[in-house]
Amino acid sequence: MAESRFGMTELDDLPEDLRERIGEVAQKSGFVPNIFRALGHRPAELRAFLDYHDALMHKSEGLTKAERELVVVATSAANHCTYCIVAHGAVLRIRSKDPQIADKVSSNPWQAPLDKRSRAITDLALALARTPEHFGESDLAAARAAGLTDDEIWDVGAITALFAASNRLAHLMALQPNPEFYLMGRTTKSG
Amino acid sequence: MAESRFGMTELDDLPEDLRERIGEVAQKSGFVPNIFRALGHRPAELRAFLDYHDALMHKSEGLTKAERELVVVATSAANHCTYCIVAHGAVLRIRSKDPQIADKVSSNPWQAPLDKRSRAITDLALALARTPEHFGESDLAAARAAGLTDDEIWDVGAITALFAASNRLAHLMALQPNPEFYLMGRTTKSG
Amino acid sequence: MAESRFGMTELDDLPEDLRERIGEVAQKSGFVPNIFRALGHRPAELRAFLDYHDALMHKSEGLTKAERELVVVATSAANHCTYCIVAHGAVLRIRSKDPQIADKVSSNPWQAPLDKRSRAITDLALALARTPEHFGESDLAAARAAGLTDDEIWDVGAITALFAASNRLAHLMALQPNPEFYLMGRTTKSG
Amino acid sequence: MAESRFGMTELDDLPEDLRERIGEVAQKSGFVPNIFRALGHRPAELRAFLDYHDALMHKSEGLTKAERELVVVATSAANHCTYCIVAHGAVLRIRSKDPQIADKVSSNPWQAPLDKRSRAITDLALALARTPEHFGESDLAAARAAGLTDDEIWDVGAITALFAASNRLAHLMALQPNPEFYLMGRTTKSG
Amino acid sequence: MAESRFGMTELDDLPEDLRERIGEVAQKSGFVPNIFRALGHRPAELRAFLDYHDALMHKSEGLTKAERELVVVATSAANHCTYCIVAHGAVLRIRSKDPQIADKVSSNPWQAPLDKRSRAITDLALALARTPEHFGESDLAAARAAGLTDDEIWDVGAITALFAASNRLAHLMALQPNPEFYLMGRTTKSG
Amino acid sequence: MAESRFGMTELDDLPEDLRERIGEVAQKSGFVPNIFRALGHRPAELRAFLDYHDALMHKSEGLTKAERELVVVATSAANHCTYCIVAHGAVLRIRSKDPQIADKVSSNPWQAPLDKRSRAITDLALALARTPEHFGESDLAAARAAGLTDDEIWDVGAITALFAASNRLAHLMALQPNPEFYLMGRTTKSG
Repeated sequence: MAESRFGMTELDDLPEDLRERIGEVAQKSGFVPNIFRALGHRPAELRAFLDYHDALMHKSEGLTKAERELVVVATSAANHCTYCIVAHGAVLRIRSKDPQIADKVSSNPWQAPLDKRSRAITDLALALARTPEHFGESDLAAARAAGLTDDEIWDVGAITALFAASNRLAHLMALQPNPEFYLMGRTTKSG
Repeated sequence: MAESRFGMTELDDLPEDLRERIGEVAQKSGFVPNIFRALGHRPAELRAFLDYHDALMHKSEGLTKAERELVVVATSAANHCTYCIVAHGAVLRIRSKDPQIADKVSSNPWQAPLDKRSRAITDLALALARTPEHFGESDLAAARAAGLTDDEIWDVGAITALFAASNRLAHLMALQPNPEFYLMGRTTKSG
Repeated sequence: MAESRFGMTELDDLPEDLRERIGEVAQKSGFVPNIFRALGHRPAELRAFLDYHDALMHKSEGLTKAERELVVVATSAANHCTYCIVAHGAVLRIRSKDPQIADKVSSNPWQAPLDKRSRAITDLALALARTPEHFGESDLAAARAAGLTDDEIWDVGAITALFAASNRLAHLMALQPNPEFYLMGRTTKSG
Repeated sequence: MAESRFGMTELDDLPEDLRERIGEVAQKSGFVPNIFRALGHRPAELRAFLDYHDALMHKSEGLTKAERELVVVATSAANHCTYCIVAHGAVLRIRSKDPQIADKVSSNPWQAPLDKRSRAITDLALALARTPEHFGESDLAAARAAGLTDDEIWDVGAITALFAASNRLAHLMALQPNPEFYLMGRTTKSG
Repeated sequence: MAESRFGMTELDDLPEDLRERIGEVAQKSGFVPNIFRALGHRPAELRAFLDYHDALMHKSEGLTKAERELVVVATSAANHCTYCIVAHGAVLRIRSKDPQIADKVSSNPWQAPLDKRSRAITDLALALARTPEHFGESDLAAARAAGLTDDEIWDVGAITALFAASNRLAHLMALQPNPEFYLMGRTTKSG
Repeated sequence: MAESRFGMTELDDLPEDLRERIGEVAQKSGFVPNIFRALGHRPAELRAFLDYHDALMHKSEGLTKAERELVVVATSAANHCTYCIVAHGAVLRIRSKDPQIADKVSSNPWQAPLDKRSRAITDLALALARTPEHFGESDLAAARAAGLTDDEIWDVGAITALFAASNRLAHLMALQPNPEFYLMGRTTKSG
């Protein structure tokens, strides 16, 4: 099974800014996540994708980093995206220091046992993920009732939207996860 | 009805690069499309969105500009996104010089009467738009049988993915289209 | 693209009563709506269809004419019927004197911004349109809470039912709208 | 449980032409089918409904009467309409002289064991019944491959359309079947 | 039409314990229900199936026998299982002494007219039958509000689960009902 | 979060035959899988469930043990059952000696990369899992074309049916997996 239907671009063949930027991620993780090599044949799109991703996932106010990853895993579960579930499931385990949460959310995001705030975040993401035409005032009211601010609601919605795109790119490519992701954060110590 | 649930940012309140960039669009169109003012409260996200959009929609090789807009309208129809259907429906009418095509595709993208190549493009977009978990080799084979290259298939898939995001942002905001869009390209002359 | 898969019958080839009846419509509109020529090969069915249509759409008490057209456009949107969306969208624009409403309702009937009464009418039609097996007391209660009388509820339900039939006939024929419909009522003056 | 949410009109309170027409049916059947009394509060609609019904169900060329009832039961099964399944199930048993067919088709129209022509008729009806937006050339090709003429295809489509309406009226009213229908045609002799 | 795609095993060819056990049922009913002969080629599975069935359907506390059959018919209707609808429809008619209830529930389990307790039982079964991933606290709360004990809730859920299996076995085999079932319990006297 | 909504029964409180039988499993695994304690309050049902399970999952001819677990994981993924995905995912990893397969199949059973025989097995299970009313000859033909015997087809269908039940019981209980399952078989050595 190829890693992507559209081939992979090695770091050395990327424009310098992308090579450096992804090189930093690789150094931290110990490997280059496949998504970067898979999008490398279209540098302008990869650059925009990274910018969008960082603007939403590295934002310091509002949602915690674990909560942002929760939105990603719930959205990717609703969209059945193997790459994003496995890769961001790993990050969610690490950020939340909970080795079970990713498997619980990815197998059944609608009923996974979560605290009230996490449930409200997940429900908001799910409302937008698959049938966005029904998204409406009652979804917003439920989120606000659980204490989410409008800025946090935006974050949940925008991350859900970004991974609506990301999930579809991965499906287009039949993108396979790096083997490393499967094990990351599965023991509480290393998690 | 407000134009967006999350308020609008006027051009003068945007960072300079965005003000200039959107100013140019506004000068060509004669008005500022609401999506720009609606995303203005998050300049980094707006910038990444514009970069992604331009990388895919202003690309000169492969799909024609009309074909790119066809993908947007079919995807937005499948996602029932009023803003994108009305705004990109206008652009599709203009690019294709066909005053009826947008209403036909947006009302029923699955069976709208299209030539063979346009039908293959639309079917590919629809396969990825709503149930991406089923996207597979048979979808790719159908696209290739209609003469689409892998580069064109990527374009269709990536535009579908970008508007999966864009449609959801519009639903999140309950974004309303500018009144100008409704009439653009509806007569063959001006079209 | 043929106007109908089953051919068209010209006015001169219709029985006299239908020729006169449709002739009157044509004189008012300036053209013969394609549905009449498309159903002309079965005069008895066309006659019954017209009788049913007129009994529901030309009724003077209860719902306004704009409200009746709103039910038609919402139902036809739920059923993705190009002919009925384009043709009755035109009539809705004219009856409601609102050049945007048809595109808003047809692109997303579930969340189109409407006043409370129009929303209740639309929700009632949508409840019956696609999953009628779930239609029940809670749908009726919501309609009554918005002030609809039982007679008005019947009208909404019966129009939804008639266009469940009409939409399917149009899908069976792949019926194309007359070009004139696309532009009617799009400017407030002429609207 | 009332027979209809909107009340019943007795034969004596109907206009003369309807009283006579329905009286004839009642004399043949031995009872007045509830649908007639339930629609009686709107005589013009009832009259148009009867005209449409008779034009399609009493037509002598093309489909047999049993085949027409098969379309009704399959459509009503897809729409989960209790009144139409029970009432037309009875007629189907009688017309086809098969005491089991109605229960087989109504419980699972997609896979009920049927001869090739009946299966093609049923599949055509089902294609139009629930997701008419996908109805297309491949559905027509399958029907023609099974030997259906265009005139027969029209009949199947038009009956499916009429009962799309009829099923929804019954759901609107929560119309209950007459007790007599449950037993009719269940033994081969009387069937 | 064969009774099962996988053939039938006659009583004489079954292991002695099964021959006796099914012989008793046959003596009471007057015929051997097809399901037993159809599962006979796998005696261990048939034995386990019978044990599970008897543990749930012959239990004397909690739900009445008619209520247990109501769960079976509602579940089988949601799963469109002809064999189970016809066979257990017969038993439901007999147990409830109501010759109409099975046809009402099987044609539309969501809106069939039922008393409050029967409606709660049916709704609980339906919540688990088709989209079990959404089953949650609100379903349990509704059941408890209608007076169901936790033991009764378990019975409803477990019977729904058992027939989720049973319905699928019947679909796998295209299992046909015995002719006798169609008529059982249809007249109040014999019912 | 409780392990089950309906409480747990400890081994010591089970009838002797069940205590011994489950004790053996516990000795092999090093822990008592939660499903056994969760079903313990209904010993007769637990006994029948175990018998059915063993008849299908411990059968030595036909499908391999890894293939049987593949059916379980695919079915449980289609039904979004956390307990069964996590518990049987562990067993699938061990039986197949593939530490990634369970996450791939559970995140997207429809498109997970599998060899031809495994894909045919998985497709057969999926055809029966969610919309069994459409299961038909074309599903069987595809399985046979991939070389499956009728005996193997039965196994796939019957395991899918058993876990249709099992998944629903787990949803009814909101059953949580034992922590041990999450890590089992995740490294090739121990796997």
